[in-house]
Amino acid sequence: VRSAILAVGTELLGADRADTNSLRLSAVLADFGVAVQHKSVVGDDEAAIAREVSRLADEHDLVLLTGGLGPTADDVTREAVAAAAGRRLVHDPALEAELRQRFARFLRRMPETNLRQAAVIEGATLLPNRRGTAPALTLPLGSATLFLFPGVPFELEGLIAEHLVPWLARRTGGHKRETATLKVACVPESEVDERLQPAYAEFGREPITVLCSPGEVRVRMTATGDGAGRAARLQAMTARVRQLLGPEVFAATEAETLEEVVGVALRAAQATVATAESCTGGLIAERLTRIAGASDYLLGGVVAYSNALKTALLGVSQEILAVHGAVSEPVARAMAEGVVARTGARFGLAVTGIAGPGGGSEEKPVGSVHLALFDAAEPRASVHHLVRFPGDRERIRWQTSQLALDLLRRRLVAAGSR
Amino acid sequence: VRSAILAVGTELLGADRADTNSLRLSAVLADFGVAVQHKSVVGDDEAAIAREVSRLADEHDLVLLTGGLGPTADDVTREAVAAAAGRRLVHDPALEAELRQRFARFLRRMPETNLRQAAVIEGATLLPNRRGTAPALTLPLGSATLFLFPGVPFELEGLIAEHLVPWLARRTGGHKRETATLKVACVPESEVDERLQPAYAEFGREPITVLCSPGEVRVRMTATGDGAGRAARLQAMTARVRQLLGPEVFAATEAETLEEVVGVALRAAQATVATAESCTGGLIAERLTRIAGASDYLLGGVVAYSNALKTALLGVSQEILAVHGAVSEPVARAMAEGVVARTGARFGLAVTGIAGPGGGSEEKPVGSVHLALFDAAEPRASVHHLVRFPGDRERIRWQTSQLALDLLRRRLVAAGSR
Repeated sequence: VRSAILAVGTELLGADRADTNSLRLSAVLADFGVAVQHKSVVGDDEAAIAREVSRLADEHDLVLLTGGLGPTADDVTREAVAAAAGRRLVHDPALEAELRQRFARFLRRMPETNLRQAAVIEGATLLPNRRGTAPALTLPLGSATLFLFPGVPFELEGLIAEHLVPWLARRTGGHKRETATLKVACVPESEVDERLQPAYAEFGREPITVLCSPGEVRVRMTATGDGAGRAARLQAMTARVRQLLGPEVFAATEAETLEEVVGVALRAAQATVATAESCTGGLIAERLTRIAGASDYLLGGVVAYSNALKTALLGVSQEILAVHGAVSEPVARAMAEGVVARTGARFGLAVTGIAGPGGGSEEKPVGSVHLALFDAAEPRASVHHLVRFPGDRERIRWQTSQLALDLLRRRLVAAGSR
Repeated sequence: VRSAILAVGTELLGADRADTNSLRLSAVLADFGVAVQHKSVVGDDEAAIAREVSRLADEHDLVLLTGGLGPTADDVTREAVAAAAGRRLVHDPALEAELRQRFARFLRRMPETNLRQAAVIEGATLLPNRRGTAPALTLPLGSATLFLFPGVPFELEGLIAEHLVPWLARRTGGHKRETATLKVACVPESEVDERLQPAYAEFGREPITVLCSPGEVRVRMTATGDGAGRAARLQAMTARVRQLLGPEVFAATEAETLEEVVGVALRAAQATVATAESCTGGLIAERLTRIAGASDYLLGGVVAYSNALKTALLGVSQEILAVHGAVSEPVARAMAEGVVARTGARFGLAVTGIAGPGGGSEEKPVGSVHLALFDAAEPRASVHHLVRFPGDRERIRWQTSQLALDLLRRRLVAAGSR
């Protein structure tokens, strides 16, 4: 089934509102193995809607349209689709009666403009809308099936469940898709792609998607088709990708965040952590405390932005600061040890770097960050990293927090595996 | 100018990601009086991209395309547009050298797949991208002008400023629309709307939009048309709205954030601040340090998540904690004073509360937050607030940080006005 989605509404062509109904429709279609080939947005313009509907119906088997079924004069989807289909709009007295009853039920007078919503495209099937005044419609257009839905998300949701899902189940014979996601932190997209080459060769490119955001790459595997083979294929694909990505994989679901995974690992190890942050200014502690119940493993942290505070709050010696500078391995290590000494946490996680845009030098350019993890339970397993991140201040800080959390995660994995 | 936007990317046809680049592009176009007539999304499919580009170029004067310029094999926008334009793709050795330099600068090896980004459509103009590896391109297609931009928002933003805006200015003869924004923190949307009634009566509802996000309301004024009347109208409208909203207005531009405004005020007062956070877990310090140069006024902070750390790092007495509980006025005040004592900052900004979902009680339900601001220069001007925020953990923490920063801003305004 080739499918397309058309959203109607001049407001969706402006700067403030994205078409999000199509995301919901895509999810429902995908469950039945129907991929969306095309999405369009047009304004409340009868000719433009009619042109686009005709075009989409020519090239697809299923066209889902949302919006423009309201009562006001700029809601012209009914007229446009009637024109595209070469059919008349007819007034439906039963529908009018229902509309009037609906208003009466809420003790309101029906504005005369709402009468427009009692117009039906000749030959179309009416799909009752329990959540609003605009009924949905379905009709054939050429060889395609067309659905017209109102644009209000709450109403659309009801109509999907009541009408679209049963139609898709009949048409496709049931669910057809399963997905799995693996996430890695701090590996560049291109490197992930390179590592995945053997998986592409084995399973094809199509079912493996690489999605990139700063400091994080998601690899999504999709298995489609009928029967037991689908689940087995997904499992095989996921196992292979996991093997290729190795211990960099930190999560096996779409929703899990690095701070969540680290929290689970800390809790499992009955370990505590405290942070000592310079360039991230509290971001690492803030991320750890996004998780409810973080007080079980995060004792707290210090934001030592000035050198004086690195000494006063973390006990970093003035000599080390003077000799090596604030952005250096000895200072990062001293911060990590210092926060452990002051808080009694097992782990001290420290970062000091140059987030920019100012403060860089030839020797220590913007983006240079020293990270240190001190493990009081096994001081010799403490680590230090020097990295240089690209991007602006925000990205440098975010990537620093990603790497810091990932260092802690990897240490917990290593400590737990013995 | 008839314009259309095409977003390329299979992930934009799925359930997870909406095309938001087009919102940004629409905003830029609107500033130059160019309305968007059509938006489309197609997948990483060479034939589909080529077909859609040709079609959009037939019906519009300007077509802006985003996405599919990356290094991976599924980035096929270059190939598709070359095919649509009937041109060849040629390898650009200078571009390759630049790519290799870029990777070297970040101490990374360039994966061979990135070589694809050195391919240029014959006859197209290269638009350098300072923020990433994918250069933008512009070329004519039929009677339309086509721009190809990478899909990464951060890179797109740079390319808009550097290349698209100057092109639009030349093509349209300059701006046709002006907007102004006033922002207030921690005032409910309905109260803002009520206060604005006189402005609606004077200028109409159309040009005044109220946009709401957690802990913040933006009021946007829009004036359109040519000539001097436009600026005067905008100015009159803005002055009236500002008067109606009063001292709650913290910013007069869309982009300015509360942390930025607070930073400017602290710098002007030559004052320093340190934070003492419990339920926000570092968010307030993190927000203050988002601003480049924050080290001039933020000395640092303490995240005292556990009671023990409130005592160890902030000197909050165990007795106060035992008698009043961690979420109380005396503890908030002691945290604010404690962080000043330990850091030597003029201002101590402290919050302690229940972000939930657990930890609430009849007496102190989830959302209860105590905020304290200690001013060492004028201890009697120190303040305390008890509030109860609605929403989930994330919203409670965010609103707490908004109110904390706004308390500091208002104190700085009051101190500066005498």
